Amino acid sequence: MPELAYLNGKIMPIEEARVPIEDRGYQFADAVYEYFASYKGKLFAVKEHLDRLEKSLRALEFPPISRELLRDAVLGTFQQAGIDRAGVYLQISRGVAPRNHAFPNGAKPQIVITVRQVPDTSREYLEKGIAAITVTDIRWGRCDIKTVQLLPNVLAKQQALSAGVQDAIFVSPEGIVREGTSSNLFIAIGGRLKTHPLTPHILPGITRAVLLDICRKINVHVEEVFFDNNTMLAAEEVFITGTVTEVLSVCRIDGRTIGAGKPGPMAARLRKELEACAGAHL
Amino acid sequence: MPELAYLNGKIMPIEEARVPIEDRGYQFADAVYEYFASYKGKLFAVKEHLDRLEKSLRALEFPPISRELLRDAVLGTFQQAGIDRAGVYLQISRGVAPRNHAFPNGAKPQIVITVRQVPDTSREYLEKGIAAITVTDIRWGRCDIKTVQLLPNVLAKQQALSAGVQDAIFVSPEGIVREGTSSNLFIAIGGRLKTHPLTPHILPGITRAVLLDICRKINVHVEEVFFDNNTMLAAEEVFITGTVTEVLSVCRIDGRTIGAGKPGPMAARLRKELEACAGAHL
Repeated sequence: MPELAYLNGKIMPIEEARVPIEDRGYQFADAVYEYFASYKGKLFAVKEHLDRLEKSLRALEFPPISRELLRDAVLGTFQQAGIDRAGVYLQISRGVAPRNHAFPNGAKPQIVITVRQVPDTSREYLEKGIAAITVTDIRWGRCDIKTVQLLPNVLAKQQALSAGVQDAIFVSPEGIVREGTSSNLFIAIGGRLKTHPLTPHILPGITRAVLLDICRKINVHVEEVFFDNNTMLAAEEVFITGTVTEVLSVCRIDGRTIGAGKPGPMAARLRKELEACAGAHL
Repeated sequence: MPELAYLNGKIMPIEEARVPIEDRGYQFADAVYEYFASYKGKLFAVKEHLDRLEKSLRALEFPPISRELLRDAVLGTFQQAGIDRAGVYLQISRGVAPRNHAFPNGAKPQIVITVRQVPDTSREYLEKGIAAITVTDIRWGRCDIKTVQLLPNVLAKQQALSAGVQDAIFVSPEGIVREGTSSNLFIAIGGRLKTHPLTPHILPGITRAVLLDICRKINVHVEEVFFDNNTMLAAEEVFITGTVTEVLSVCRIDGRTIGAGKPGPMAARLRKELEACAGAHL
């Protein structure tokens, strides 16, 4: 079960995969990505991830890339790695060209994949929830496109770790709660949920969409609405959602206890439903 | 006079220089850069660029890197290339590590340099000025740090080219004029200049700083103040400034003619003074 890389058609050990220094992903953050996870040897929501990837590619006006090529690359590398619980990272940059802001003529998009073991979410975090800080969202205005412009996410995550907590929550300058550094965010109040609507300021998470579907099926009411920091702090539950995160309760924010201070019934229920859904999907 | 790359201590042809796909510059835009230009075989303002680079490195909490090592790398690669009018691009990423937002433990910053011939600014643009569009600034909130988070700059530049003009000018959502896609911006009104003050929303340009010094010496009054789009459109002159751009008049913005519709006396004077300064610096 080796961890593997794919680079423009070839599979190799990750350490051997290298890209030219004038790859525009390296010099301009001119690249998009997706992250797939597998459960018991099967990748989850491949179609949804490829759909979002195509949207990202179109938003940046990349030249067309065959969906079959991308799907085969992802599935082929994943299968060759043979890791049951794998994280498959796929990145596509606009290509390689002498440094110049304008789109290069005739550059060929570079396709890179890594397949690595996904570390299990710590049992402690699942049982006790995590703590987070809020940070002002200084990311660019197109967080709906899944690009590698992730430096503010990196800095916010590190700020959280330095503060002794596990994650940071982006809040707009006006006080609207947006999302985590690599996850969407929900709050529960009176058995109902709220989450930020899809705007250019948040990522349209696959797990978020799957959970909205699940909530419709199990009759849990979800509003996609703006809510502020005080509303979040007063909620009964806060949880973040993502491909690796799945559903994870946030029980302390900026030093204040959320609800009962431990993972609540809504997060537990949704986590269970999501796992059932990932299982059924296989 | 070959174009050359430097990669962590070794000099080689640019095409041969490659970085691991898990370089954080590639996956997170977790990298900073500088761009030096030479005049008649001598690099200009090396100290100023290295000073700014150190500020960028500190702002992102990179581990300390010897200034002598960086200066020697820049000068050594430049000298070996032997190009009179060279652009020296220096990029430093946080290092290589399995993908994870948090700062990696013990990762070693990757140092990459390219030395390329600088294309001369088109005679037509010098004689007639350029045209530009304005675009809403959707960049992140720390444009004062010179990072590779340049995708919005790329998209704005391309939008300008698609509109048949040469550059785009970032204007804040409130209408404050900030800077170009790779340059600062000045306007002239009644023999006096205005330029955006140093805030987290613009790059503290080296050429901008040199010009402010020159203006003090030649008694041209400059105000570092906010001004809006209408003020810019009503100015007698608008010009952008940068390491390669030097001083370049913008004579049409969003289809409206600026001043007399051709490069004005202030831009011409400052361009001449800047060239004299670059010459004197040698």
